[in-house]
Amino acid sequence: MIPPSVGRETRALILQAALRIVRTYGFGGLTLGNLARAVGMSKSGLFAHFKSIEQVHLTSVTYIADVFRSEVILPALEEAEGLPQLEATITKWQDWADQSASSGGCPFIASFFEFDDRDGPVRDSLLAQELAWRAHLNQLVAATTETGVFREDLDSEKFVSEICGIYYSFHVSLRFLHSGSARAISQLEVEALLQRSLRSSEHSLNSRSPKL
Amino acid sequence: MIPPSVGRETRALILQAALRIVRTYGFGGLTLGNLARAVGMSKSGLFAHFKSIEQVHLTSVTYIADVFRSEVILPALEEAEGLPQLEATITKWQDWADQSASSGGCPFIASFFEFDDRDGPVRDSLLAQELAWRAHLNQLVAATTETGVFREDLDSEKFVSEICGIYYSFHVSLRFLHSGSARAISQLEVEALLQRSLRSSEHSLNSRSPKL
Repeated sequence: MIPPSVGRETRALILQAALRIVRTYGFGGLTLGNLARAVGMSKSGLFAHFKSIEQVHLTSVTYIADVFRSEVILPALEEAEGLPQLEATITKWQDWADQSASSGGCPFIASFFEFDDRDGPVRDSLLAQELAWRAHLNQLVAATTETGVFREDLDSEKFVSEICGIYYSFHVSLRFLHSGSARAISQLEVEALLQRSLRSSEHSLNSRSPKL
Repeated sequence: MIPPSVGRETRALILQAALRIVRTYGFGGLTLGNLARAVGMSKSGLFAHFKSIEQVHLTSVTYIADVFRSEVILPALEEAEGLPQLEATITKWQDWADQSASSGGCPFIASFFEFDDRDGPVRDSLLAQELAWRAHLNQLVAATTETGVFREDLDSEKFVSEICGIYYSFHVSLRFLHSGSARAISQLEVEALLQRSLRSSEHSLNSRSPKL
């Protein structure tokens, strides 16, 4: 009999392989056949861990969201509340897409276009994760306003929509167009968005955020 | 023997069906099986028109680009040169994504994420179309600068990156998040982008562009 810890380790290896596949081929490429090949298991071996491809997809969404949390959300929260946390979050988010050329891009982004016209539990789970992420961004914007740095009349929904657009455009420039200036241009866009959200010119972005 | 005009009509029907499939499922969903079902033909019937799925994909990219040209690019060129053409182009582009709920979204957008880590002629063709589109946007921005409306020091590469980001974010809000305010927020973002690109406050956006 396989001890439970071995089962857990195998499951972790399967989910790591799933993340690599989704980064490169999207959820559409995460089939039982591709996953079995990637981990060197038979399909029936996979079935000992997951009952269906839908269960693989659902578990992968949660797993990828956990990795995102530990690589993007949590490290940025170590900065001071307000603008420093917001800036660190944006930088870590860009790093998440800007990994080595061979590792593929943001695992979630393709799914926003893959699943936009399909219903079902996988779409629901992806949607819940995206709404939670946008709520987190919204909260960081609100905290930056509360600390007196951003304008009180700042439209935070518009801010979040804009920062998401900057991120998507960055992803396309970097990974589809292979533009050498993708990160630099995206950085300028982020800087300009922050600049025009400031309460007044007394809050200079450069003095508050030497990293940008 | 089938006269050539019948062949051309069938080919047009096949390509229209391909566009509908790509709008909903992306190029990943454009398989010979799906296409044959959509047009009510056998796979061997399809082979009379296209030798491979790759040829279907390549022909579809050109066909979709032609439709885009006739629905977005050309009508906007009927406006006056400069800002009116740029604004009309952006509006028609948003209409292109904002069709009836059942018709699917922008047929190209998913492919920027589907094909970002895959090489081959389909990616090359999609890339060529996207670069041509961005060159067109760039030209519209340059013309708006030349007519004295936009600032001479405007970074047109950054402008194009920003307007693409606004479009992608709009697409996600509209079709993935099903947000009721997607178009309104996107409109505000476009307006703000145009506003901050103006040469000076003497060019008020509202007086020049009553449509926004």
